[in-house]
Amino acid sequence: MTIQLESLSLDDAQRVITAAREKAGEIESPSNVAVVDIGGNLVSHIRMDDAWVGSVDISINKAFTARAFDIATKGPLGQRSARRTVLGIQGSNQGRVMIFAGGIPLRHDGHVVGAVGVSGGSGEQDQAVAEAAVAAF
Amino acid sequence: MTIQLESLSLDDAQRVITAAREKAGEIESPSNVAVVDIGGNLVSHIRMDDAWVGSVDISINKAFTARAFDIATKGPLGQRSARRTVLGIQGSNQGRVMIFAGGIPLRHDGHVVGAVGVSGGSGEQDQAVAEAAVAAF
Amino acid sequence: MTIQLESLSLDDAQRVITAAREKAGEIESPSNVAVVDIGGNLVSHIRMDDAWVGSVDISINKAFTARAFDIATKGPLGQRSARRTVLGIQGSNQGRVMIFAGGIPLRHDGHVVGAVGVSGGSGEQDQAVAEAAVAAF
Amino acid sequence: MTIQLESLSLDDAQRVITAAREKAGEIESPSNVAVVDIGGNLVSHIRMDDAWVGSVDISINKAFTARAFDIATKGPLGQRSARRTVLGIQGSNQGRVMIFAGGIPLRHDGHVVGAVGVSGGSGEQDQAVAEAAVAAF
Repeated sequence: MTIQLESLSLDDAQRVITAAREKAGEIESPSNVAVVDIGGNLVSHIRMDDAWVGSVDISINKAFTARAFDIATKGPLGQRSARRTVLGIQGSNQGRVMIFAGGIPLRHDGHVVGAVGVSGGSGEQDQAVAEAAVAAF
Repeated sequence: MTIQLESLSLDDAQRVITAAREKAGEIESPSNVAVVDIGGNLVSHIRMDDAWVGSVDISINKAFTARAFDIATKGPLGQRSARRTVLGIQGSNQGRVMIFAGGIPLRHDGHVVGAVGVSGGSGEQDQAVAEAAVAAF
Repeated sequence: MTIQLESLSLDDAQRVITAAREKAGEIESPSNVAVVDIGGNLVSHIRMDDAWVGSVDISINKAFTARAFDIATKGPLGQRSARRTVLGIQGSNQGRVMIFAGGIPLRHDGHVVGAVGVSGGSGEQDQAVAEAAVAAF
Repeated sequence: MTIQLESLSLDDAQRVITAAREKAGEIESPSNVAVVDIGGNLVSHIRMDDAWVGSVDISINKAFTARAFDIATKGPLGQRSARRTVLGIQGSNQGRVMIFAGGIPLRHDGHVVGAVGVSGGSGEQDQAVAEAAVAAF
C-alpha cells in the first residue's frame, strides 16, 4: 500500500549546481543556486562570489516552489496570479512561494524528483542558468 | 583564496544618520533612519521624535534591501515588481524586502560598503532624506 | 480620563548611548547598545566596530524586556525563571524576552520612561556598560 | 574611515564542505554541512543522502551562531546558558542561536572570516566533522 518515491541524491544536486555555476559564469550573472529533493527540502546550495545576499532565500524558495507545485516558477504561476486565478498565492507557505523565473522541476523518467532554483540576475538570466542546470540532470 | 571586503564603520554610519536627521528636520518629515554594513546587518538606527513606530522596521528593512540586492529600493525593484518580472519579491527574505523609495546603497570607490534606509514620510520625502544621507558619506 | 505618559526623546537616547559607548570603549567590550521608549519601541541603536552581529537583536530585546516588565533583565527575571515561578517566560513575546544581564529601565522622577539594553561581552561587562548608560540619563 | 574585512569565497566554502563530507562518510554520520561568510550569510550547504531533513536549518544556524558571536557553539555558549549567565540566549535572533556542538568559526591569519556548521549525528560526531572542516580551511 505504501508509495515508491524517487528522489535526487546529493551527487545529482552537485552535478546540477556545477552546471548552473558554469553557465552563470559564462553569462556573467553571479547567482545563488539551490536544489531541493522530492520532499521540497534543501539538498544543496551555493552563493557565487559577488552574488546577492538577498538571493539566498529566493533561490531556495524558487526551488521549493517548483517542487511544491511541480511547475516552473516562470510563467504559469505568475500568470495565474496576474489573471487572479491564484491571486496572492505568494503569501501562502509562509511566504516561500516565488512566482517569477528561475525555478524548474527536475524530472527523471517523466516524474518530478526534485527542483532547482536560481536567483542572481534578470529573469532571463536566472531562467538560462536554471535551464542549463536542468540539462545537466 | 579569501576575499577582501570593505565595510562602513560606526562613525561612518553616525555621520550618515546625522545628515539624514538634519534633512528630515529641514523638510519637516520626522523619520526613522537605519544603516547596515556590507553583511546587511544593522550598524545604527534612530527614530526621531514624532516619527512612526511602524517605520522602525521599514527603515531597517529598506537598508537591508538596498544592500541585499545592491540597488535603490525606489524605482528598479518596485518597477520590476509592477512589470511582474519579480512579482511578489517583497514576500521573500521573511518579508524584509521593501520595494518603495527610501533605501539606497552606500558606495566607496564605486563598490557597495553598506546601505541607508529611511522611513517617515512620503516616498519623495524619504528619498530626499536618504539622498542627503548618501551625500554625507 | 486619558493617561499622561512621559517618554524619553531621541536626544535622551543618544546621550545614553554616547555614555554607554564611552564606557564600553574604556572596558574594551565592543557592544551593541539600544534604547527603547515608554512604548517599548526602538528609539536608537548602535553596533560598535568589532561588536557581535548576533548581539544586535539581543541588545534591542534586552531594552524591550526591561521596559516590557519595568525590571532589570539581570537577576529578577532570570532568577524567577530558574526558581520556576516564570518558567519559560523567555519564550513569550515571540522570543523577545531576554533574562540575563544588560537591560535596565530608564526612570525619570521615579517612573519608567524607557530602557537601555547592552550586549557585547560577559554579563558583568554588559551590566557595567548599561549602568554607565543609566547614570548618564 | 571604512573598515577592511576579509571573507571566505565559494571555493573556500566548497573545500571546507568537501572535507566535512569525507569525514562524515568515514565516521558514518550522514550530515548537513553549511558555511557562512563574514556577514553571517549562507555561502554553501549540503545535505548528505540519509541525513536528517530537520538538520538543514540546524546546520545553517550553527554556522550563523559561530559567526554571530565568533565562538564555537560547543562548550562556551551551552555552558554559559547552563550556568545561567546567558540563560535563554537560544531564543534570541529569531531562534537562530544554536548552543550545542557542531558550529566553529573559520579563521584566517587569526581573525574570523566565516564559520561552518554541522548537524547530523551526536554532538561528538558533529564536532568531529566540523573540526575536519576547519582543518581543511
